[in-house]
Amino acid sequence: MKGIVHFNEGESVSLYLLIKSAAKSVASNGKPFLTLILQDKSGEIDAKLWDAAPQDEKDYVPDTIVKVEGDITTFRGKNQLRIRNIRLASQQDPVKKSDLVATAPMSINEMVDTMNQFIFEIRNPNIQRLTRALLKKHQEAFFEFPAAVKNHHEYVSGLAYHVVSMLNLAKSVAALYPSLDTDLLYSGIILHDMGKVIELSGATSASYTLEGKLLGHISIMVNEIGQTAKEMGVEGEEVTILQHIVLSHHSKPEWGSPKPPLIKEAEILHMLDNLDAKMNMLTRAIERTKPGEFTERLFAMDNRSFYHPLYDSKVPVE
Amino acid sequence: MKGIVHFNEGESVSLYLLIKSAAKSVASNGKPFLTLILQDKSGEIDAKLWDAAPQDEKDYVPDTIVKVEGDITTFRGKNQLRIRNIRLASQQDPVKKSDLVATAPMSINEMVDTMNQFIFEIRNPNIQRLTRALLKKHQEAFFEFPAAVKNHHEYVSGLAYHVVSMLNLAKSVAALYPSLDTDLLYSGIILHDMGKVIELSGATSASYTLEGKLLGHISIMVNEIGQTAKEMGVEGEEVTILQHIVLSHHSKPEWGSPKPPLIKEAEILHMLDNLDAKMNMLTRAIERTKPGEFTERLFAMDNRSFYHPLYDSKVPVE
Amino acid sequence: MKGIVHFNEGESVSLYLLIKSAAKSVASNGKPFLTLILQDKSGEIDAKLWDAAPQDEKDYVPDTIVKVEGDITTFRGKNQLRIRNIRLASQQDPVKKSDLVATAPMSINEMVDTMNQFIFEIRNPNIQRLTRALLKKHQEAFFEFPAAVKNHHEYVSGLAYHVVSMLNLAKSVAALYPSLDTDLLYSGIILHDMGKVIELSGATSASYTLEGKLLGHISIMVNEIGQTAKEMGVEGEEVTILQHIVLSHHSKPEWGSPKPPLIKEAEILHMLDNLDAKMNMLTRAIERTKPGEFTERLFAMDNRSFYHPLYDSKVPVE
Amino acid sequence: MKGIVHFNEGESVSLYLLIKSAAKSVASNGKPFLTLILQDKSGEIDAKLWDAAPQDEKDYVPDTIVKVEGDITTFRGKNQLRIRNIRLASQQDPVKKSDLVATAPMSINEMVDTMNQFIFEIRNPNIQRLTRALLKKHQEAFFEFPAAVKNHHEYVSGLAYHVVSMLNLAKSVAALYPSLDTDLLYSGIILHDMGKVIELSGATSASYTLEGKLLGHISIMVNEIGQTAKEMGVEGEEVTILQHIVLSHHSKPEWGSPKPPLIKEAEILHMLDNLDAKMNMLTRAIERTKPGEFTERLFAMDNRSFYHPLYDSKVPVE
Amino acid sequence: MKGIVHFNEGESVSLYLLIKSAAKSVASNGKPFLTLILQDKSGEIDAKLWDAAPQDEKDYVPDTIVKVEGDITTFRGKNQLRIRNIRLASQQDPVKKSDLVATAPMSINEMVDTMNQFIFEIRNPNIQRLTRALLKKHQEAFFEFPAAVKNHHEYVSGLAYHVVSMLNLAKSVAALYPSLDTDLLYSGIILHDMGKVIELSGATSASYTLEGKLLGHISIMVNEIGQTAKEMGVEGEEVTILQHIVLSHHSKPEWGSPKPPLIKEAEILHMLDNLDAKMNMLTRAIERTKPGEFTERLFAMDNRSFYHPLYDSKVPVE
Amino acid sequence: MKGIVHFNEGESVSLYLLIKSAAKSVASNGKPFLTLILQDKSGEIDAKLWDAAPQDEKDYVPDTIVKVEGDITTFRGKNQLRIRNIRLASQQDPVKKSDLVATAPMSINEMVDTMNQFIFEIRNPNIQRLTRALLKKHQEAFFEFPAAVKNHHEYVSGLAYHVVSMLNLAKSVAALYPSLDTDLLYSGIILHDMGKVIELSGATSASYTLEGKLLGHISIMVNEIGQTAKEMGVEGEEVTILQHIVLSHHSKPEWGSPKPPLIKEAEILHMLDNLDAKMNMLTRAIERTKPGEFTERLFAMDNRSFYHPLYDSKVPVE
Repeated sequence: MKGIVHFNEGESVSLYLLIKSAAKSVASNGKPFLTLILQDKSGEIDAKLWDAAPQDEKDYVPDTIVKVEGDITTFRGKNQLRIRNIRLASQQDPVKKSDLVATAPMSINEMVDTMNQFIFEIRNPNIQRLTRALLKKHQEAFFEFPAAVKNHHEYVSGLAYHVVSMLNLAKSVAALYPSLDTDLLYSGIILHDMGKVIELSGATSASYTLEGKLLGHISIMVNEIGQTAKEMGVEGEEVTILQHIVLSHHSKPEWGSPKPPLIKEAEILHMLDNLDAKMNMLTRAIERTKPGEFTERLFAMDNRSFYHPLYDSKVPVE
Repeated sequence: MKGIVHFNEGESVSLYLLIKSAAKSVASNGKPFLTLILQDKSGEIDAKLWDAAPQDEKDYVPDTIVKVEGDITTFRGKNQLRIRNIRLASQQDPVKKSDLVATAPMSINEMVDTMNQFIFEIRNPNIQRLTRALLKKHQEAFFEFPAAVKNHHEYVSGLAYHVVSMLNLAKSVAALYPSLDTDLLYSGIILHDMGKVIELSGATSASYTLEGKLLGHISIMVNEIGQTAKEMGVEGEEVTILQHIVLSHHSKPEWGSPKPPLIKEAEILHMLDNLDAKMNMLTRAIERTKPGEFTERLFAMDNRSFYHPLYDSKVPVE
Repeated sequence: MKGIVHFNEGESVSLYLLIKSAAKSVASNGKPFLTLILQDKSGEIDAKLWDAAPQDEKDYVPDTIVKVEGDITTFRGKNQLRIRNIRLASQQDPVKKSDLVATAPMSINEMVDTMNQFIFEIRNPNIQRLTRALLKKHQEAFFEFPAAVKNHHEYVSGLAYHVVSMLNLAKSVAALYPSLDTDLLYSGIILHDMGKVIELSGATSASYTLEGKLLGHISIMVNEIGQTAKEMGVEGEEVTILQHIVLSHHSKPEWGSPKPPLIKEAEILHMLDNLDAKMNMLTRAIERTKPGEFTERLFAMDNRSFYHPLYDSKVPVE
Repeated sequence: MKGIVHFNEGESVSLYLLIKSAAKSVASNGKPFLTLILQDKSGEIDAKLWDAAPQDEKDYVPDTIVKVEGDITTFRGKNQLRIRNIRLASQQDPVKKSDLVATAPMSINEMVDTMNQFIFEIRNPNIQRLTRALLKKHQEAFFEFPAAVKNHHEYVSGLAYHVVSMLNLAKSVAALYPSLDTDLLYSGIILHDMGKVIELSGATSASYTLEGKLLGHISIMVNEIGQTAKEMGVEGEEVTILQHIVLSHHSKPEWGSPKPPLIKEAEILHMLDNLDAKMNMLTRAIERTKPGEFTERLFAMDNRSFYHPLYDSKVPVE
Repeated sequence: MKGIVHFNEGESVSLYLLIKSAAKSVASNGKPFLTLILQDKSGEIDAKLWDAAPQDEKDYVPDTIVKVEGDITTFRGKNQLRIRNIRLASQQDPVKKSDLVATAPMSINEMVDTMNQFIFEIRNPNIQRLTRALLKKHQEAFFEFPAAVKNHHEYVSGLAYHVVSMLNLAKSVAALYPSLDTDLLYSGIILHDMGKVIELSGATSASYTLEGKLLGHISIMVNEIGQTAKEMGVEGEEVTILQHIVLSHHSKPEWGSPKPPLIKEAEILHMLDNLDAKMNMLTRAIERTKPGEFTERLFAMDNRSFYHPLYDSKVPVE
Repeated sequence: MKGIVHFNEGESVSLYLLIKSAAKSVASNGKPFLTLILQDKSGEIDAKLWDAAPQDEKDYVPDTIVKVEGDITTFRGKNQLRIRNIRLASQQDPVKKSDLVATAPMSINEMVDTMNQFIFEIRNPNIQRLTRALLKKHQEAFFEFPAAVKNHHEYVSGLAYHVVSMLNLAKSVAALYPSLDTDLLYSGIILHDMGKVIELSGATSASYTLEGKLLGHISIMVNEIGQTAKEMGVEGEEVTILQHIVLSHHSKPEWGSPKPPLIKEAEILHMLDNLDAKMNMLTRAIERTKPGEFTERLFAMDNRSFYHPLYDSKVPVE
């Protein structure tokens, strides 16, 4: 079925959609209206519900599924949905939340297996035990949370998928530079963003918790490693080094790391994290852009617009 | 007795001194010589031991007391000590290390009492218990360590003295602004730099430990609070808030705080920390400078030179 | 009586209010409307007068009192007033401007007395005479002007109240650090922002004068000190030092001080200025925020939102 | 045979060495002496020739081979060579320059083959022809020059070796992210630093030419691509894109790129360039450092010192 | 005839105007409207066409002449045109595009003559030939293009007029500082912005081409000089120096120059470029502002508002 | 007679020289020596007086003329003077200080005449009277002081010469841009650096006074204008505008101007100041450099080295 982002101006839609956010405004004629962001797996769209009744405001709140009929218009070059009819979905409607949210392109089971395989390859028993214990402690959330609220891997299971991609990347790179310690790399990759399961409030609602705001996922995870090591009686400089790898993985103070990487594997982990996040952002932005045109500005890439070449080497030259 | 910094060019000295650092060089005539930094309570001086023998290099190492005879010369406007005779102090010499190192202008007992009094004034039982437990755990080092390796309060018991000064300041300020929560302020002040007892290697040798270099005293202390709270079964947002106050007390990422202060008392604690450190640096720099002249450049004060006014309001006008 | 900021969405209001600013716009139906900012002592609110007549635009100008009836709505999370009826207040209405503008929580007489007491404590006769003369010259405006157009102490007599708070703070701090010269501190505090009486246009309309825009209150006041000293025949480095304290009280070039503080008391004055301004901003922002929530972003505090803790040590623990 | 960097203080040496740089000074006894930097494949050392005769200054110039006898001393923690006897090497001496300079760990033939293989894999005929022509034009210098004057790959054939490493890395990464266009990546990697053969003066003397100083290797190479394309009659946006990839490969204006990467492969090439350069610097710095210690400060890595862990996962745990 | 910017609120207009840009929006009543920017020689105005029909959107596109009737209103202090009637201009209408676009205050013929005279004064034959050839190659566009899309000399023939102004300025300055090489200055001035004829798409539509976006006018022109010199067989350091002058004329990396000026004339050219651009912006902004008031904020002048003095020395004092 | 900077290594000198600075050091053999900077009109040289006696240190102090015999050696590529004989010059020696210090290339009388002519051309009587009065008040120092302690015009009468150059430049520029107000430009140029006669201690010793350090020449001069205007009864916005032009002439806060230029002539004055200072620095640096080489790094020009072209258009092409 055609997703919400694939409709063009002038077309009518009749779809189940999930409310991502809702805000009330007053039009210049003095009447209230609602601005909703509605989503399905294909992406999201701004929608306007004019002349909203007080009950509308109470019904149409985030994380609710609605059935919508309306028309696609455009505003400042972006599609918008002008709602004609809207109602709450009920138990009888043939739709559930997981039909409407984007998820990682790999099943949770597959990701669990991959990660266990990498943990199995860790030779140092302290690092292996600590990594396994922390993954087990946070397992449920870890395999469901997004990697971020926006920008990259911002979908269900995005966090675990980002970790799996980085692990594969690390394996390739370590094959070319044999001095790299894969124990530190693999464990560091699995743990580096795990604090997000405490920093964020959930897999789909994704706001920041009090701990998230006051401490941040990096400090939270450094603490988790310290406490778990103490509880397990794990000692040795490996623990401090793993804490350092997590602490420094944003690389610069102004990006959230109070210490820059001072271990070779910490530096490389930061670069691989960056590489995978940028590949994710760039690939999706260019897919949404026609050849010969520039993408929208990408905030997390210094606000640049990237060019989608007309030239395509993948098309055979005749 | 006259301290080493109070001698003038041309005078001879015969003193017990403590070696702070030692380095070997080769003179342009090809002969080795030692450059020592020697100190007593009054301060320190550069000293040269020309034509050093191999045994000299082994004997004269940091943290050793020596008996020195020599002459004061000057080099680039700074006094220097040209050594004529030097020997290691022995058990029979009437001198001990504590005679030669600068210490806080308040006894440890007095500081312990003051701090206990402030802890007693904390009303919230969680905060009081946690603060008391952490102070007890690190008590010995806490009352002996310097507040920093250089710049401010860089003497024995400097850390505790800085804390006592800040507590008194906090009490005065809270009297003028009654909305301030003194529980958070007092506990935050006592804990804010406590991680230095793990970051630094000792009360007088003062180098950085591996944990100090890879994690830093802020992250170390945030962990300590978390672990101790867990061990004691203390729960509630107070714990997160205290961790935040420690985490944010350097105020900006580039100064080492991954989160800026987001609690009123965290902001005020940062300002009081700054005020006490600057008063300490400025007062000592101006004391060393004659009226009508400028101090040496103070690195930790943006490299400024401060003016010591000729005008003095404390002298009665006739 | 309930102030304008204490009404909730859906309530009706019938109040005397002062127009703080007024701007005409054209609605998308092509009809003009007025956006007014209306205030009473409790604070201010945005108000819309739809279908405004040409006369409305002439009548409803800043610094005018109006009687308003209307309804509270919300727009982007902020309250807004939808005006039903509005008229100019006349002589017969039981209201005057001072009923509607916020003022310092201390009477002018009390502040005059406090400041005179501090001047009396200045021992150096040059500093005392100069301070007294400058205060006398600008006395009327000095005790009525706000400390700033926005951000902190932005109410009638805010400037003098800020000075009184800083004087009390200076007295407490000088008691703990006896090397501070209270003559320089007290005089510097009284003079530091006095140039605002020339930089700003008045106690309640608060726009910038030509001198304010082209020279700024710091340069204006440095000139005032120089000219007054010359007229009084006061000489000595005290004059240059007081000029320096005013010149440097914003601390950094990018904040408006062409020289950084190079006198100990200048550095401390800058810190106390900062401390009092931040206490003022923070206290009011947190008072407006429910426990467990974050304040709005505070522009002058690096755009941070501060947390109002749920935990409250002032409530007795049972 | 033991290289110059592997001798310890107190040992005597008798070696053929290459003069890297030479400078005359006057000792404090008024006599001239020479400071030479001498190198062999193992690295370099500072050497002092005391009481230098006028002829010595003429003989011992950069890029000359000498036979040296002397003793290892230390100065500020670094080894130094005190020369006892020195003479110019003659035709009869069993040594040639290539015995004394560091070179890439792969033969030129092998690198030529690898690069040809990658060019062969480029499918777009314009890109393939242009890349092949430019490589052919500059082939000789390209396979001999260092990648930089200092910091990374600063040895004979360092430029080509860096390119080969990046090509292998690109192949691995493209296997994981199939949307990457390997034509642009492979051609961009081969061309990105080719301008250095004009920017620098030679394979071992490595100073900057006038064109290097006034235009820089990036602008030089953008021109080369434009001119060669024009001469060959190659047209199409591929040419502009390849110029852009070279132009933007330093990523930021302050690092020398007037445009940031605006093509996905340009962004990735910048990251792979960085990754290979950092791996090269880090691996060599850590090899020179004992486990449990920190490396010297690495200027090109933000002046950081990296820790060489004691813990080593590569040693089997018993 | 009165230009569009000289009408006041409340007046009616009936004019031929050129559409500079057009954008569709949806009003809060759900009906589409067009926002047009319309211009004549006097400047431009925002215009609203309410209740736009689908055909309107197709007709009223950029670079089209329309006949408009409407009324001047104001919005946020700026004039706006409320359209009553609008139609496309036809062949019969007594208007052509050049009547409606601003142009330089000097004819193309006059500018061609001036530039030829300056080229004639260049003594070095290489520089003279190269400059003449490049001017000839791009002559048509060079004398029609604007100097920039906005900010300064953003009108037809603005580029050439900016160059003529700079040449005159250079002649005056060189008369005062005789060490300046006028060959480099004159040639550098003529060539410095010539790349804009490739960077921009045309004299009046002024958007960026793909080469403009990926390479920028500076790199484009450095290439042009290199290729033209090669084709003409011109050699010598003059070519590299001219390329450097163009490369460095924005002075800093963050302003687009990968190398800063390293030739005296390059530094001076940058300053004269700046001086002429700022004179152009300032003079026009102040002309639009009444004496005693401040101009609007000028984005390209660090967002400053400049004061138009009341005092005027040009009016005779009586 | 050959100046001190024109001697080469190995030559002997016998010259009268002025001591610019003197510093005592101790050689590694423990004996004191003096490092003198000696100057004549041609420039300056470092000189060493080995085995200095105590009397030498008292005799050879700054601003003293000496007769010196010695030999030119080199150290780190710079010439140095090894002193064989030195004695104080007496009344009988045929030398005076003005023979040994660099001065502006225009006589004071000529500069006085030029400046009076420009003042005569000022039409506004307030500006003319104020400028004349301030010039008269500081006339003696104004025509003798350097423009700066180092970097540009750092010679006797350098300040007045810099002003004369800027006046001529302003006249040329105003001829091309007739909207410029020459009253403001000429008066602003004469006054802009006049505060240096109070900021600096003298024409040849050139250190900073207390007022210079605590207030700076900009604030000093803004005060001077204000006081003089008040004493003369001159009023009107001209006074504020002249103060603003002086206040803003360094253009940015971090360069010492608390307000940026907000008057057109203030902006232009800043640019002309810059242009004349840079021409002065560049011309002298390039004169000292052989064609085909780069100058030493110029600190005040962002530490750049400039290229002196081999190519010279001033030599006729044959």
